[in-house]
Amino acid sequence: MNANYVRIFDTTLRDGEQSPGATLTSAEKLEIARSLARLGVDIIEAGFPAASPDDLEAVRRIAIEVGNPPSGSSELSQPVPVICGLARANKADIDAAWEAVKHAAHPRIHTFLATSPIHMRYKLRMDPEEVVERVRETVAHAHSYCEDVEFSPEDAGRSEPEFLYLVLGEAIKAGATTLNIPDTVGYTTPDEFGRLIAGIMEHTPGIEKAIVSVHCHDDLGLATANTLAGIQAGARQVEVTINGIGERAGNTSLEEVVMTLHTRRAAFNLEYGIDTTQIARVSRMVSNYTGIPVAPNKAVVGANAFAHEAGIHQDGMLKNQMTYEIMRPETVGLSRSQLVLGKHSGRHALRVHLQELGYELNDQDLFTAFERFKELADKKKTVTDADLEALIEDQAFQSEEVYSLDGLQVACGTMGMPTATVRLRGPDGALRIQAAIGTGPVDATYKAIDSIVGVPSQLLEFNVHAVTEGIDAIGEVTVRLMAENGSSIKRTSPQSGQVQKRTFGGYGADTDIIVASAKAYLSALNKLMTYRSRHAVEAAAQD
Amino acid sequence: MNANYVRIFDTTLRDGEQSPGATLTSAEKLEIARSLARLGVDIIEAGFPAASPDDLEAVRRIAIEVGNPPSGSSELSQPVPVICGLARANKADIDAAWEAVKHAAHPRIHTFLATSPIHMRYKLRMDPEEVVERVRETVAHAHSYCEDVEFSPEDAGRSEPEFLYLVLGEAIKAGATTLNIPDTVGYTTPDEFGRLIAGIMEHTPGIEKAIVSVHCHDDLGLATANTLAGIQAGARQVEVTINGIGERAGNTSLEEVVMTLHTRRAAFNLEYGIDTTQIARVSRMVSNYTGIPVAPNKAVVGANAFAHEAGIHQDGMLKNQMTYEIMRPETVGLSRSQLVLGKHSGRHALRVHLQELGYELNDQDLFTAFERFKELADKKKTVTDADLEALIEDQAFQSEEVYSLDGLQVACGTMGMPTATVRLRGPDGALRIQAAIGTGPVDATYKAIDSIVGVPSQLLEFNVHAVTEGIDAIGEVTVRLMAENGSSIKRTSPQSGQVQKRTFGGYGADTDIIVASAKAYLSALNKLMTYRSRHAVEAAAQD
Repeated sequence: MNANYVRIFDTTLRDGEQSPGATLTSAEKLEIARSLARLGVDIIEAGFPAASPDDLEAVRRIAIEVGNPPSGSSELSQPVPVICGLARANKADIDAAWEAVKHAAHPRIHTFLATSPIHMRYKLRMDPEEVVERVRETVAHAHSYCEDVEFSPEDAGRSEPEFLYLVLGEAIKAGATTLNIPDTVGYTTPDEFGRLIAGIMEHTPGIEKAIVSVHCHDDLGLATANTLAGIQAGARQVEVTINGIGERAGNTSLEEVVMTLHTRRAAFNLEYGIDTTQIARVSRMVSNYTGIPVAPNKAVVGANAFAHEAGIHQDGMLKNQMTYEIMRPETVGLSRSQLVLGKHSGRHALRVHLQELGYELNDQDLFTAFERFKELADKKKTVTDADLEALIEDQAFQSEEVYSLDGLQVACGTMGMPTATVRLRGPDGALRIQAAIGTGPVDATYKAIDSIVGVPSQLLEFNVHAVTEGIDAIGEVTVRLMAENGSSIKRTSPQSGQVQKRTFGGYGADTDIIVASAKAYLSALNKLMTYRSRHAVEAAAQD
Repeated sequence: MNANYVRIFDTTLRDGEQSPGATLTSAEKLEIARSLARLGVDIIEAGFPAASPDDLEAVRRIAIEVGNPPSGSSELSQPVPVICGLARANKADIDAAWEAVKHAAHPRIHTFLATSPIHMRYKLRMDPEEVVERVRETVAHAHSYCEDVEFSPEDAGRSEPEFLYLVLGEAIKAGATTLNIPDTVGYTTPDEFGRLIAGIMEHTPGIEKAIVSVHCHDDLGLATANTLAGIQAGARQVEVTINGIGERAGNTSLEEVVMTLHTRRAAFNLEYGIDTTQIARVSRMVSNYTGIPVAPNKAVVGANAFAHEAGIHQDGMLKNQMTYEIMRPETVGLSRSQLVLGKHSGRHALRVHLQELGYELNDQDLFTAFERFKELADKKKTVTDADLEALIEDQAFQSEEVYSLDGLQVACGTMGMPTATVRLRGPDGALRIQAAIGTGPVDATYKAIDSIVGVPSQLLEFNVHAVTEGIDAIGEVTVRLMAENGSSIKRTSPQSGQVQKRTFGGYGADTDIIVASAKAYLSALNKLMTYRSRHAVEAAAQD
């Protein structure tokens, strides 16, 4: 074991997916997991299998398909990530987690229990002795399935240090191999968090047998600094998400931590397994699938993050680059060519190009993608990689359709009677048509769709942005909605136990933003209907 | 002088405005400056007066109107911020800065010169002795105008410590009262930056007579942590921007630093003059005027930043709040009522409400706002504060019109012939009408506008988001564009000397997003045309 190697534990699919509206389908989770594996993360926390049969199934598919070497190859060519499932500290959760992750070549069970006085008293209603006993039992139970067990003392920052060392020592004795220290509410400063980790490294019995991990939240904008302080104090695993998504202000950003270790190699002198050139691509995929935009001034992955555009190597600028640039856009994968394919490009060229972008399409999907590519190339002068990504992701989002858009006609403007006519193909294959007026073209379109679909929902967010520069660009629309009478569609936070209404994100892309808006709304409604039919009793099934 | 007081130096209007596309009009700058004063910032860096006559004029107006107590009142009732202008280390820049800020009750000149070997050798082409002499001369020249002089040694992080102490000591002798230490390229870690500040506090001759300031950038996601490390090492001024906007990944966020000092009072034990309840409002205003969106997972000001909605005090949640919440939304001003005015509200109610929101409208503007409010209340069930802000800011953006939208009619959909007919009123008062087809309704609308206006431009960004929940919401559109043959519209970065093409942001709000898109595009084109007529030789005028 290399003492200077920092393990990257990505929890985009578990803690990140707890962001409001980030609900992902199993297919989307699988595709993100594949991208995370390509990025080179060491551990993928794929979900919380006890939440519902659907969550368990999503983790299971990732364990099978991403957690094993491709058939015919061995791990020597490409390392296979550990697949981890989260479990509360009880037998049923751990059984569900094992059921989901056991198919992976390297499975891990991650269990947690709060150790702070306030959490033990008010949330758990357990005394400290009971907490220690529960940790011993559940870690041992997890260890009976699996060599690789992670334990987190929740709210570690507000726990009594001596008690924390005791609990962690008992977890190690019971078989925990990774001890993860969360700053659950994003409250600590780098100094404080570094001291907390240093204290654990010094005082926990048997700590030399385990890896210490840190898990920070960004409520005060300090997640990256706290994570780095933890590493400097001896932590060798960091729990992070792509784009820093997660509940509230989110988790630590993978890209910020990795690029600090990369850019400041001499200061940290640590190693990691990430292929930094995959960062930009995974960032875009997660933003598109979750519907959570990235601000232009976001470090590393924001649109303005780099002083100079990729590929520009004007002679006189080299001196300026030394003076004003600490990272090159190429390092995070922003070096892609702008103009890639034209209207005369063939199907083989498209397939090769999509493979370079990381998309493996079957023949049917490639056929559809090619048809849509030709259609786009007729409308738009240049088809860029970003256009292709929007097109493929739009297609992926429409794949689990209940209702699909067959036709749309809209009239709007300052005369004040925006009208939309919508024709949808229903689950029975029949076409239905409705017209509606609204306060604007999107409102009119959504009202017409509502009158066909008949599922009352509330629109929470609506965003459009242009994929590329130029007025003929593809518009990407993301929406977020929840069922109006959504009493049956809820989710329970594994930590707080709070029940929240589930919200559903949708995505659509088209050169016509009203068409894209209709597709995005339909994709969110389709998700809602699919969930509703599968999980009417999900909330009730959780203890 | 209270040794525990941290001065908040806001540079949203100077370093923030250097963000790509954040170009603000003088009227917008003035309104943001008013909001910053209401927020309680100690120093407003209002601009870089030597950049152009227009920049000088914008700083001058802020110095006059925001840098003095309202007529009839004294500073005792409300403190008046210092108004600061940036100047390179030469006589002409300092003269321009003084010309702009001298009208303020408390003027400041901020000058800077690089002190790192790489910058001195390649950018300045000066040897260290020349740099020391230049600092002496220019600080003394600034001091001859003004008691309050700030000096920044650019690229301090890569400067020789001994040379840095020497330069700073000479700046103090020549009259500098604030010494600002920038991490120009966002490269340092909190440990390193804290040590840099501690070294300066210990070794700079005469440092006890000056205030040490810190100015950090967020390229590695560490700006807030570096700024706090500087404070802990003795800095008593922090240079920050609203929403952390600025070049590349931006500057330190005002809201993150202030809310850390607030939330972690016991750990820092420091005072500041900010009214935290103004934070949310200023954040929205800066986002709308600059067109730079705030990510939902942004700390403090993101849409998801708080675990619980404002005003919700369910009985059983109090315990949960103790366990999972470190800040309350009310503290940053998110407690505003949702439903505020209905269609039967009168003009007086609207005026009172707008005053509460911080808008002072003259009778003509109030008349227009009231007409538009009634129109909106007819369309939309509930008119919220966010709707009113969108409406007022839409109105403000259209105020310097060259062309205005008189009529728009759009047909689009899946039949694939999106068509727009646009009628504009030109600067001569005449109406012009054109129709165009495009790849979508926005493209068609923009092509029709282009064919009337005849100013070739390139669209760089296009974003829409819904102001409130619900499908009948107002849509806000922000665009960013630059002149296609924009050789005459450039801006020079004061630090790097790099010449960049100026880009122009536009904003529009309407329940019809195509109408809002037309307004946003026109407002950006109007800005472009206004700048072009005033500043054809701006770049040439700079040294």
